[in-house]
Amino acid sequence: MLVDVTIKLKRGVTDPEGENTKKALTLLGFKNVQSVGVMKTFRIEMDCGDEAEAVKQAEEMCRRLLANPVIHEYEIKVVRG
Amino acid sequence: MLVDVTIKLKRGVTDPEGENTKKALTLLGFKNVQSVGVMKTFRIEMDCGDEAEAVKQAEEMCRRLLANPVIHEYEIKVVRG
Repeated sequence: MLVDVTIKLKRGVTDPEGENTKKALTLLGFKNVQSVGVMKTFRIEMDCGDEAEAVKQAEEMCRRLLANPVIHEYEIKVVRG
Repeated sequence: MLVDVTIKLKRGVTDPEGENTKKALTLLGFKNVQSVGVMKTFRIEMDCGDEAEAVKQAEEMCRRLLANPVIHEYEIKVVRG
């Protein structure tokens, strides 16, 4: 089972990497860029027959390791069963 | 126009962050994890009326700033027109 776990910053949390990327793009001449946000995706291949079980495990991975609940929110998507 | 630019490592390039995440997950008890890969997505909001033009600009951003052609490949997706 292939699962994509996307970690992004909660609304209202400053995204310095995104802001600096926006600045750099503007300096390079891309004047029409209004905002840049950065997200990270973990593509996890796991040995698991059941889709619901895979999502449950991915959620536990987020809670225990991948995401920081103070600043992050996460999204789990099964890519391939 | 909202465009997602996803940067991932080319096949064959070592992904230390993914490998260490896999190790950590295994140590936490997720024994069924087979591999973990990491990708980064830039969500770019740009002032641009035409979808093809937005994709063209995003490609130029990848070439000039966001991706390293030696190790990265990129994918561009228009999220909202």
